[in-house]
Amino acid sequence: AHVSFSAEHYSEGEMIKRSKEFYELLSKRRSVRFISDEPVPREVINNVIKAAGTSPSGAHTEPWTFVVVQDPEVKQRIREIIEEEEEINYKKRMGDRWVNDLKRLRYLDYSSYLILILKQVYGMLPNGQRRTPLLNEIMLLPVVILFANVGLVTVTSTPLNCGPRLRVLLQRPKNEKLLLLLPVGYPSKDATVPDLTRKPLDDIMVVM
Amino acid sequence: AHVSFSAEHYSEGEMIKRSKEFYELLSKRRSVRFISDEPVPREVINNVIKAAGTSPSGAHTEPWTFVVVQDPEVKQRIREIIEEEEEINYKKRMGDRWVNDLKRLRYLDYSSYLILILKQVYGMLPNGQRRTPLLNEIMLLPVVILFANVGLVTVTSTPLNCGPRLRVLLQRPKNEKLLLLLPVGYPSKDATVPDLTRKPLDDIMVVM
Ligand SMILES: Cc1cc2nc3c(=O)[nH]c(=O)nc-3n(C[C@H](O)[C@H](O)[C@H](O)COP(=O)(O)O)c2cc1C
Ligand SMILES: Cc1cc2nc3c(=O)[nH]c(=O)nc-3n(C[C@H](O)[C@H](O)[C@H](O)COP(=O)(O)O)c2cc1C
Repeated sequence: AHVSFSAEHYSEGEMIKRSKEFYELLSKRRSVRFISDEPVPREVINNVIKAAGTSPSGAHTEPWTFVVVQDPEVKQRIREIIEEEEEINYKKRMGDRWVNDLKRLRYLDYSSYLILILKQVYGMLPNGQRRTPLLNEIMLLPVVILFANVGLVTVTSTPLNCGPRLRVLLQRPKNEKLLLLLPVGYPSKDATVPDLTRKPLDDIMVVM
Repeated sequence: AHVSFSAEHYSEGEMIKRSKEFYELLSKRRSVRFISDEPVPREVINNVIKAAGTSPSGAHTEPWTFVVVQDPEVKQRIREIIEEEEEINYKKRMGDRWVNDLKRLRYLDYSSYLILILKQVYGMLPNGQRRTPLLNEIMLLPVVILFANVGLVTVTSTPLNCGPRLRVLLQRPKNEKLLLLLPVGYPSKDATVPDLTRKPLDDIMVVM
């Protein structure tokens, strides 16, 4: 069944204004690794995940699960798993002595929430058999934009090789694969970020 | 070098309100395959691509190129390539007679712009040698959100097997791989969309 669709028809001036404001909002977003322990209302997280759940997906499979971690013990266990895997990766690659910078990942303990985004890589029939793989590309609505819109910060991270252990810790089924780990909270008072610049429009856009 | 970072600190009430409004904006977004030929101001497209260019990327590699196609002949050529590849795919899979539904992809001709998003899969040194691959996951800021914000529509598409031919047509280098093709414009007056529902929050969110 099809239903009719219409959208707000803005004037050209309004469209230009709205698109400029949106750009300005997003241009202030940064990956912040200094996150305060000030509590964030759960309703905001719920709305952000509801918003993320409106993302397009191949054949409308909606192949995602958002795990929201509040429990301090689970947060700490996640940090430990990441640190252990980093040590293994480091030793393999460098054949060197591992010096654990104990403070580096502490924001994982402090953040109000850790959000883990998992992608369902294949469907599971009721009898336990695999279904044909779902579409691979997932247009994951960067939850990061949504946080920028409410004054919260996060850092997009893809912890190397931690997927399987984190999946077990979170008690998720085998068909789910860790995509991203996002610690979420207010920036801490003394937060700093690397002094980066972004490519100008001419370097990323080609018109023909 | 590091610089200090701060964000707007909204009250809880404001955060909840802003996150709810954002959800409501996004929940109205749909993939629309009926696009009018009414021209869209270029400045809006520029702002949307500038906004997309603020996306996070692994190690700040910014590995993306946005090709904006206005030229009617290039648009038509893109549609033809997609139709040809669909025919090949169809015959291989179905071993059947191909019935080209001539109208199905006509929105590619009508749309004000076709935006092709390419990802740089490895860096190229000045001497032409490949550099180590850049990060694979690209947090492509769904341009789709941005369009929803200005009353334009698009449909996320990943034309099967067309990447190499489209790359040549667009004269892009070998290290760029087609991720998405987005036709952009106003919805046409008689636009319809499939009558889909989305998973409720409880089906996509787990709290622990
Ligand atoms: C797929 C992906 C993985 C990332 N992984 C990490 C990570 O493991 N640790 C980290 O501190 N930052 C990580 N980042 C954040 C990037 O370093 C950051 O986005 C980039 O330097 C640009 O800075 P900005 O986000 O402040 O604009 C990752 C970003 C992406 C998109
Ligand atoms: C990676 C990806 C590829 C897609 N490819 C196509 C496509 O080739 N043709 C098409 O009509 N729709 C395509 N879609 C759109 C989906 O069918 C659509 O997002 C889904 O049915 C949900 O509908 P909605 O976007 O209106 O919420 C694609 C979506 C994604 C995320």
